[in-house]
Amino acid sequence: MLHTTKTPLSEDLKRLVGQPVAAIDTPALVVDLDAMQRNLSRMAEFARKHDIRWRPHAKMHKSSAIAKLQMQAGAVGVCVQKTSEAEAMVAGGVHDVYISNEVIAPAKLARVAELAHQVAAERGQLAIAVDSLEGIRRLANAMNDRRRNGQGAIIDVFIEIDIGQGRCGIAPGRMAVDLAHEIRKHPALRFAGLQAYHGKAQHLRRPQARRDTIANVVQDVQFTRKLLENEGLHVALVTGAGTGTLVFEAASGVYGELQAGSFLFMDADYAANERDPAQPQFEHALFVKSQVMSSGLLHAVCDAGHKSHAIDSGLPTVLTLEPTGPLDYLNGGDEHGLLKPADGNQRVPHLDETIWLIPGHCDPTVNLHNHLVGVVGGLEHGKVDKIIRVDARGALT
Amino acid sequence: MLHTTKTPLSEDLKRLVGQPVAAIDTPALVVDLDAMQRNLSRMAEFARKHDIRWRPHAKMHKSSAIAKLQMQAGAVGVCVQKTSEAEAMVAGGVHDVYISNEVIAPAKLARVAELAHQVAAERGQLAIAVDSLEGIRRLANAMNDRRRNGQGAIIDVFIEIDIGQGRCGIAPGRMAVDLAHEIRKHPALRFAGLQAYHGKAQHLRRPQARRDTIANVVQDVQFTRKLLENEGLHVALVTGAGTGTLVFEAASGVYGELQAGSFLFMDADYAANERDPAQPQFEHALFVKSQVMSSGLLHAVCDAGHKSHAIDSGLPTVLTLEPTGPLDYLNGGDEHGLLKPADGNQRVPHLDETIWLIPGHCDPTVNLHNHLVGVVGGLEHGKVDKIIRVDARGALT
Repeated sequence: MLHTTKTPLSEDLKRLVGQPVAAIDTPALVVDLDAMQRNLSRMAEFARKHDIRWRPHAKMHKSSAIAKLQMQAGAVGVCVQKTSEAEAMVAGGVHDVYISNEVIAPAKLARVAELAHQVAAERGQLAIAVDSLEGIRRLANAMNDRRRNGQGAIIDVFIEIDIGQGRCGIAPGRMAVDLAHEIRKHPALRFAGLQAYHGKAQHLRRPQARRDTIANVVQDVQFTRKLLENEGLHVALVTGAGTGTLVFEAASGVYGELQAGSFLFMDADYAANERDPAQPQFEHALFVKSQVMSSGLLHAVCDAGHKSHAIDSGLPTVLTLEPTGPLDYLNGGDEHGLLKPADGNQRVPHLDETIWLIPGHCDPTVNLHNHLVGVVGGLEHGKVDKIIRVDARGALT
Repeated sequence: MLHTTKTPLSEDLKRLVGQPVAAIDTPALVVDLDAMQRNLSRMAEFARKHDIRWRPHAKMHKSSAIAKLQMQAGAVGVCVQKTSEAEAMVAGGVHDVYISNEVIAPAKLARVAELAHQVAAERGQLAIAVDSLEGIRRLANAMNDRRRNGQGAIIDVFIEIDIGQGRCGIAPGRMAVDLAHEIRKHPALRFAGLQAYHGKAQHLRRPQARRDTIANVVQDVQFTRKLLENEGLHVALVTGAGTGTLVFEAASGVYGELQAGSFLFMDADYAANERDPAQPQFEHALFVKSQVMSSGLLHAVCDAGHKSHAIDSGLPTVLTLEPTGPLDYLNGGDEHGLLKPADGNQRVPHLDETIWLIPGHCDPTVNLHNHLVGVVGGLEHGKVDKIIRVDARGALT
């Protein structure tokens, strides 16, 4: 029961491949594939150096094609947040998928069980997070319903602990033991370890603040792990971390897997972090190509508003290129962006000028678009290399 | 050259029709069709009473099916902001479409000209806004390129004046005369009047503030119209207004057409306006159906974050229903919402409980979804009546 349906690429999009960047109609979400490849290589090298697994979060790019690129570069699989995202990944040929989130609705859990069997048939593995006894029992019921004669796939189950995010997950400590015991009661479930992600730590601007926060996180994780292991419940893996903190989790000796996803594209919010010296230097690889469609005495207007890019983590910034010079982007509503000369620049952009925006937050920006336009050779003089389908766009359930 | 491709509805979605509301998987964007119909009737009655045309903005619902419902109720056609939205409307059988926005790229203008001819063949009409001599000349070139032997469709052209929005449009006054003269030079273009929309006025909370703002707007429009008419340039129509101010434009004697769109669904931001007594009482008709997927001591978490609803105009509010009681919705990121008991309520929602969110802003919320689930008989005990395709979802160009 797949909840995603594939939209065929239009002929116009197919014809775009091989054409210069100037031919890309605006607004469009454009990936600088050279920059993306450098980010990917830096992450792979970082993980190798620290001898740590990486399982990038596909909630960011929502593309099975990109997931497969990441796995070719060394990722063990991908994370997703939603059952329907997992379905899109599996349908796209990605067979090692971790739903790093709770699933409660029985109808969804039936789909989870179906996916677990689909990937098992491909020698892959499905995993999921839990934070309640009820959730574990429902998952077990769904898995049992799908099994035949007591035989079938086994799903990896991570217990989510809330180490400061204040969202899902149990408090660190004793309750994890109860949940792990419950998981072990069900033959179709395998207790795989702990899910411990601190989203709020990712955007603390100062490296020391991020370092201190993750140091506390590591204590909570160690405390919980020890309680479990004292009861003979082996914690095979602790998984978590994001692009903002990954150097600290990687150095912790406790985390065995990094879930960072945004490093691949980067966004204005992550770029506003002061970089820790140990952090790989990731580059912006995701841009909204936009065009000036109205120009006045004091400001110009481009054709990209917040239907083109998400603004939950702030407005986009404008890439400074000649002849346009430095510009501030101001909110112009759903379909427009206001452009004002900045930093001593006196020149209001002219009609037709191309404006490259760096989105404030890559994940929900990608989710606005059915496809990404992949460019090689740079934004100004490069050409379109491929169209990347955002398979899991709008996959909410 | 259509830039939209239709995604087939999945079998699961088709099977949902006729089922109870409980069967709708979450998160989902749900329309209370009864409430929508009441809003539609109230708007139609208001326009009849004031003897004014209404051309609701389809940038809000992005659905040709809803556009046709509106036209059956008396709307003269729809507005859109983007060429690709116009293409989706025309492909869906809507033949009176006004692109209330500037289009500058020659490749897009070729598509505009093609649409003008398509709707003319259906005895419909295409219109567009301009705010520069260059834009008019390019439009004329595109229309001429599409005409054969000097024969072909004529496009209606509105001059946009900036009456306080501070975005596109010329300043009220003399420049409108130059633009109107330029429009009149081109046989494929017809000067149709003035585009005068004040978006910022829509959400001034106090009716008096909205009334005062539109009173100033009306002066600017009258001043510009007089300059034009003194030169023999007949202003056939002034078009503008939104859900927040429509009573003032309707009473102005200057506006001949209302573009309000949000009245159909309403949202939390419009509901926060203090209502003017003359304003029809519009109801919330658009909701995100969500489910509690994690529940703790102090808060619960639902499965709808800002990939399910836009937050540019504030977070969603929660519809108060029993047994859940009043709840505050706090930002839980892209895929989650935090729910805390509010207003003396002590009860944290349980796993599985259904949460109905009222989005802060309907337009960009609809744009996140491929379809709307239309419900009759109420949110709690009703059933799914139809699936409404959001034809122009992601139509950005």
